[in-house]
Amino acid sequence: MARIVKKFGGTSVGDVDRIQNVARVIKSEYDQGNEVLVVVSARSGVTNELISRAKAINPNPADREMDMLLVAGEQETIALTAMALHAIGVDAVSMTGAMAGIRTDPFHTRARIVSMDCKKIIGHLEKKRVVIVAGFQGADTDGQITTLGRGGSDLSAIALAKGVDADLCQIYTDVDGVYTADPRIVPKARKLSEISYEEMLELASLGTKVMQARSVEFSNKYNVPFEVRSSFNNNPGTIVKEEVSSMEDVVVRGVALDRNQAKVLITNIPDKPGSAARVFEGLSEANVVVDMIVQNIGRNGVANLTFTVPRDDTQRAETAVNQILSELGGGEVTLVNDIAKLSVVGVGMRSHSGVAGQLFAALGEAKANIQLISTSEIKISVVIDESEAEHATRVVHTAFGLDVEE
Amino acid sequence: MARIVKKFGGTSVGDVDRIQNVARVIKSEYDQGNEVLVVVSARSGVTNELISRAKAINPNPADREMDMLLVAGEQETIALTAMALHAIGVDAVSMTGAMAGIRTDPFHTRARIVSMDCKKIIGHLEKKRVVIVAGFQGADTDGQITTLGRGGSDLSAIALAKGVDADLCQIYTDVDGVYTADPRIVPKARKLSEISYEEMLELASLGTKVMQARSVEFSNKYNVPFEVRSSFNNNPGTIVKEEVSSMEDVVVRGVALDRNQAKVLITNIPDKPGSAARVFEGLSEANVVVDMIVQNIGRNGVANLTFTVPRDDTQRAETAVNQILSELGGGEVTLVNDIAKLSVVGVGMRSHSGVAGQLFAALGEAKANIQLISTSEIKISVVIDESEAEHATRVVHTAFGLDVEE
Repeated sequence: MARIVKKFGGTSVGDVDRIQNVARVIKSEYDQGNEVLVVVSARSGVTNELISRAKAINPNPADREMDMLLVAGEQETIALTAMALHAIGVDAVSMTGAMAGIRTDPFHTRARIVSMDCKKIIGHLEKKRVVIVAGFQGADTDGQITTLGRGGSDLSAIALAKGVDADLCQIYTDVDGVYTADPRIVPKARKLSEISYEEMLELASLGTKVMQARSVEFSNKYNVPFEVRSSFNNNPGTIVKEEVSSMEDVVVRGVALDRNQAKVLITNIPDKPGSAARVFEGLSEANVVVDMIVQNIGRNGVANLTFTVPRDDTQRAETAVNQILSELGGGEVTLVNDIAKLSVVGVGMRSHSGVAGQLFAALGEAKANIQLISTSEIKISVVIDESEAEHATRVVHTAFGLDVEE
Repeated sequence: MARIVKKFGGTSVGDVDRIQNVARVIKSEYDQGNEVLVVVSARSGVTNELISRAKAINPNPADREMDMLLVAGEQETIALTAMALHAIGVDAVSMTGAMAGIRTDPFHTRARIVSMDCKKIIGHLEKKRVVIVAGFQGADTDGQITTLGRGGSDLSAIALAKGVDADLCQIYTDVDGVYTADPRIVPKARKLSEISYEEMLELASLGTKVMQARSVEFSNKYNVPFEVRSSFNNNPGTIVKEEVSSMEDVVVRGVALDRNQAKVLITNIPDKPGSAARVFEGLSEANVVVDMIVQNIGRNGVANLTFTVPRDDTQRAETAVNQILSELGGGEVTLVNDIAKLSVVGVGMRSHSGVAGQLFAALGEAKANIQLISTSEIKISVVIDESEAEHATRVVHTAFGLDVEE
C-alpha cells in the first residue's frame, strides 16, 4: 500500500467528461489498495471569467476580495470530483484549502504556505476515503481565505505530499512528461524518465511550460520528488527529484528554445560611470525583466549595450530606455524581435568540460550565427536568429546524443 | 445612527450592473452614518447551473458535496459586491457564512441555524466597515460547510439581524412590498405599510411568493421585524412585525388567489372505517401534500371525498388514489384542474364576526359558485371555478374595503 498525491490542472477537469475521466484515474489507483489524496484546480477558463467579472466592477479589486472570489472556482471542482467518484462507487470527501489545513501568511493573492495541519486528511485517508483538496488556496491564522498565486495548485500538491508524508506525488497535465526538447520542434526528442530539480528549474524558466519555476523551487526546498505525467493516457511520466551522482553521467539533459524574447541594442551611450546602471534602473522601474546582458566599450568614449527582454515588454522597454537616454544625453535604441534563445541544460556540465565548444560547433554546422552568449553552472544559452532556431535546435539535439534511438 | 441589515436576492445581484446598483443602495444608507450589514444570494441562475452540472456527473449527489458546490455561488457575489463598494469609496469586507459565525446543525442541504457568533461582524461594523455575508450558508461545529435550504438567504438575514441586534432588517426583492392583492389581477390593490407575521405566513403559503413561509416562521419565532421592499426603487416597503392590537381594526388584510391547485374528487368509496385514512396515507407515501378536504357520507353506505393538491402533483395523486381504491374495492376518481383557491386573510377575523357571510355575499355578487370552503382563525378560503377567479378576486377586494382610494 502506498500513499499517493495526484494533482489535476484546469484542463484535466475542464468539463463533465474530463472530471469523470479524472475520477476513473483515481479509482484505478484506489482499487490497487492505495491511499489517494487529490488536488484539483478550477476548470480551465473559470478563473479568467471571474477575473474579468471583477475587473468590470472594479478595475483595481482589493486582493482580499480577489481571493474570496477566485477560490469559488476550485470549490466547484472539488465537489464535482467527489460526486464523480461517488458515482463509480469510491468513497470520497472534498475539502477547501482552509479545511485541509493549508496555513499561509496573510499576503492575499500571493500567500506563502507557512504550515500544514494534515490530521483531518490523514484521518480520512486511513478510513479509505479519497480526499479531494482545492488547490491554489489556503487560510491564514485569522481564518482569512488566501490564494497562492500562479502555479498555486502545484504548490498545494507538493506541500500536501510533504504534509501527509506521501510516497509519491503525481502532477497530471496535458503533456506526458518532460522531454529532451519540444517534440513539436524536435521529432526525435525523448521523454526523460528522471530529471533533477535544478535542471527542471532551468527548463521551466526557459519557457518549457510544464510547471511554474516557483513550484519546482518549493519541491526542491522541501525535497518532495514528483512525477509529471498525462491525465489523458497511462504512460509513465518524468520523475523530478534530488540530483543523484549518476545524473552527472549525462552532460546535457535537454535543449530548450525560447522564442518569447526580443533583443534591445543601445549604441553610443555616453560612457559615464553609472550609465548602464541608470538604464537598468529605468527598466526595472518600468517593470521590465531583463535577461541576457552584454556590454562593450566602443571607440570615442561611448559604450554599446545589448540585452534581451520578454517580447511583450518591447514597447515598454523602448519607452523607458529612450527616457533614460535623453537624461544621459545621447545614444540610440534598436529593437530586434526576430531572435530566439537556445539553451542546453544539464547537471553534468559541472564535471564535464568542452560543452560550450561542442555547442558552438553544432551551431556552426547549423549555420546559426551566435549573437549573444550567457552561461550558468548547469546551462549555456545563446541568442540566434529566429529563422535558424528550429533547425539549430534539432542539430544541437543530435550533437549531444539526445535523439531517441531508432 | 442605526444598525441595518439589508438582504438582496439573486435577481437583485443578477449581473454586474445590478451589483453596482446594490452597491449604490448600500452607500446611500452608509452615507447617512448607519452601520450596514448586507446579505446576498448567488446570482440568479447560478445555483441552477451548478445543480445541473452536478446532476450530469451524479444523478444522486451526496448532500455534503452538494453544499460544497452550491456555496461557491454566493462566494462569488459577496466578493463582487465588496469590490463594487470599494469602487465607490465605501470600506467593505466580505464573509462566507462560516466566517460570519452562522453555526448550524450537521444536516446538509437543509441545515437549521443553532447559534450565531457575531463578534467579528460587530467588530467590522464598529470600524465603519460594511460587512457582506454570503446568504444561504453556514458551518456546523465540526467546520463542515452546510446550506439552509430554500429561502435560506432570507433566514440568514433574519438570523444575523437577531445576532447583531439590528434596528432594522430589510429584505430587498423584485416587488416593492406586500399588497392587499396581486396588482396584476386587482389594479386597485394597495401596498400595505405593515402586516403581522401570521398574516404574512398565510399569504406566503397561499402563493403570494414574496418570501418562503419558513423565513416568516423564523422571524416570528425570534420576533425579528423586517421590511420587504424593492431593490429597483426607493419606495418604502411593507413592515412585517408582531401583531399589535390596532391591527385587529382591519378585518381583512388581503385577498390571495392561488391558481396552482387542482381538485380531486373520489366518489363511491366503500364506507368502511379507515377508508379515508388509507387514502390520505397513500397520498402521503406518494409525497403529495393535500390541502382543503371535504368528506360527505353519501347514500347506500358509500362516501365521497374531495380535496385539493398542487397542480403539478395531479398525476401522482391520481396514481396513488387508484391504487388505494383497488385495495379498498371500489370508488372512482375525477380530477378537476380548472379551479382556483381564493382566500381572505386578517387577524381582525378573531374579533369580528360575519366575515364568512360578507365573503359569500361578495362571491354571489360575482356569480362565483363555491365548490369547497375551509377556514382557520385568521383566514377563509374557497375553491371556485378558475374562469371566475380574477373577477371574483376584484369584487371581494372591493367588498372588504381594500381598494386604493382615488
